[in-house]
Amino acid sequence: MSGADRIKQLAAIMDLPGFPKSAGMRVVSVEPGKVTMALAKREDLCQFFGHFHGGVITALADHAAGACATSSMPDGKIAVTVEIKINFLSPADGEEIIARAETIQAGSSIGVVKVEVVSLKAGAERACAFATATMRAMDMPAGFR
Amino acid sequence: MSGADRIKQLAAIMDLPGFPKSAGMRVVSVEPGKVTMALAKREDLCQFFGHFHGGVITALADHAAGACATSSMPDGKIAVTVEIKINFLSPADGEEIIARAETIQAGSSIGVVKVEVVSLKAGAERACAFATATMRAMDMPAGFR
Amino acid sequence: MSGADRIKQLAAIMDLPGFPKSAGMRVVSVEPGKVTMALAKREDLCQFFGHFHGGVITALADHAAGACATSSMPDGKIAVTVEIKINFLSPADGEEIIARAETIQAGSSIGVVKVEVVSLKAGAERACAFATATMRAMDMPAGFR
Amino acid sequence: MSGADRIKQLAAIMDLPGFPKSAGMRVVSVEPGKVTMALAKREDLCQFFGHFHGGVITALADHAAGACATSSMPDGKIAVTVEIKINFLSPADGEEIIARAETIQAGSSIGVVKVEVVSLKAGAERACAFATATMRAMDMPAGFR
Repeated sequence: MSGADRIKQLAAIMDLPGFPKSAGMRVVSVEPGKVTMALAKREDLCQFFGHFHGGVITALADHAAGACATSSMPDGKIAVTVEIKINFLSPADGEEIIARAETIQAGSSIGVVKVEVVSLKAGAERACAFATATMRAMDMPAGFR
Repeated sequence: MSGADRIKQLAAIMDLPGFPKSAGMRVVSVEPGKVTMALAKREDLCQFFGHFHGGVITALADHAAGACATSSMPDGKIAVTVEIKINFLSPADGEEIIARAETIQAGSSIGVVKVEVVSLKAGAERACAFATATMRAMDMPAGFR
Repeated sequence: MSGADRIKQLAAIMDLPGFPKSAGMRVVSVEPGKVTMALAKREDLCQFFGHFHGGVITALADHAAGACATSSMPDGKIAVTVEIKINFLSPADGEEIIARAETIQAGSSIGVVKVEVVSLKAGAERACAFATATMRAMDMPAGFR
Repeated sequence: MSGADRIKQLAAIMDLPGFPKSAGMRVVSVEPGKVTMALAKREDLCQFFGHFHGGVITALADHAAGACATSSMPDGKIAVTVEIKINFLSPADGEEIIARAETIQAGSSIGVVKVEVVSLKAGAERACAFATATMRAMDMPAGFR
């Protein structure tokens, strides 16, 4: 599958009903082993201090990691999360968060991805979280191949 | 603060606008060092296979861990997440997920909590995730003390 | 392979030259899905405060996790560590540390294990670390099957 | 304390009896927020396949992370590990391993560090592990200030 086809596939999956779509996650860029996704602030995505909720930050990081690992796998495979670990570095008090995922191990069955998440506030970025995730390849469900 | 007052405080916080409320997280039980929370399935909380999204599972685990660590801290303090690590053990394909958090270290400034998450399907529970989280104490924001 | 044969195999592997043997790790008990190992204090296993070194504690936890995951796998397979995460809960200032590993997911290719490590001091145990590890199955090298 | 003094202090601590010294860990370079350490292969540091033992790799990563976090803290403070998480990416089958730690959050009480570990074989480096660690500041024990 070409890079353009991969992006189409990824966009098609993200347009399906579910949390990524309802939260408003969007793909910023995709290349093999590198994926960037973003999410704009909305009250229902925050914790009670008014910053992005840690679980929502993790969801974006996880989604970027999954797309990133999938981009390094053979056609017909999709990455599912075995585990993810995330450190919260500073309050995510911006109007948008951006997750930049990068593959650090592309194996045939296991992939490892690191993700840097920044909070964008008045045009300035600040690191707000750092995650690593272990992914495994499974067969893409019929209808998405 | 008495146990009953803690539960009231926790319920008040969860009733504020934000992701926990909009997702529909609810407190099942609270005692010092042990907190259980639950979340019913909704299409906008799932991934594209129709199971609970990993980020949503993590959000519930994180929230239960935070409440659990807070329950072990002095009055006027609230736990915020330093880091969380979660393993996904099986598809969360039930109609509800339940997160059971238990403090394994209650320090003055740092707390460590483990969380077991089960998926409830047709009355049967199955382990679907296991998390550990490191929390630190910060001052409860004014208005919540 | 019977339980007794598994213990023999595990003991044979631990008696091979390497860190586990030179450090003095020993098997306390093995049953499918549950393994306990112990390690006595020695100056060359400590950090400069005189407590067990965190890396050494992790090595014992990792070894117990590996044996535990292997005990849940088919004959001819051995578990290798994909990742391990450990929280240090209190100084390991006892004369011995004991790692109790328990399988929380026994898959065909991936296993997840949790490990509680206690420090034993003057007959009293105190929790000093808590780990989770993700393992994958690989073929046992020839000569160990 | 000047950079040169920090290196002296670090070298003095690593020269004390304990696992780092007995294993043969050595400081390659230190600057604020960046520390590199190395460890040469020895049979008693390996697992039974003859590669570096995962626990030993973790110990080196942890030590580099601790020195790195300490380098970002005020004088008189030393970093101790709250938790460390490490992914093993490929067999550490070289004649030496090198751990490169870099601070990603330098807080007053909490620090977060990432560590890349490479295996050096016949002059070529290969990534063999990736870790993140959370550290907290404690007072340097008397005699080391």
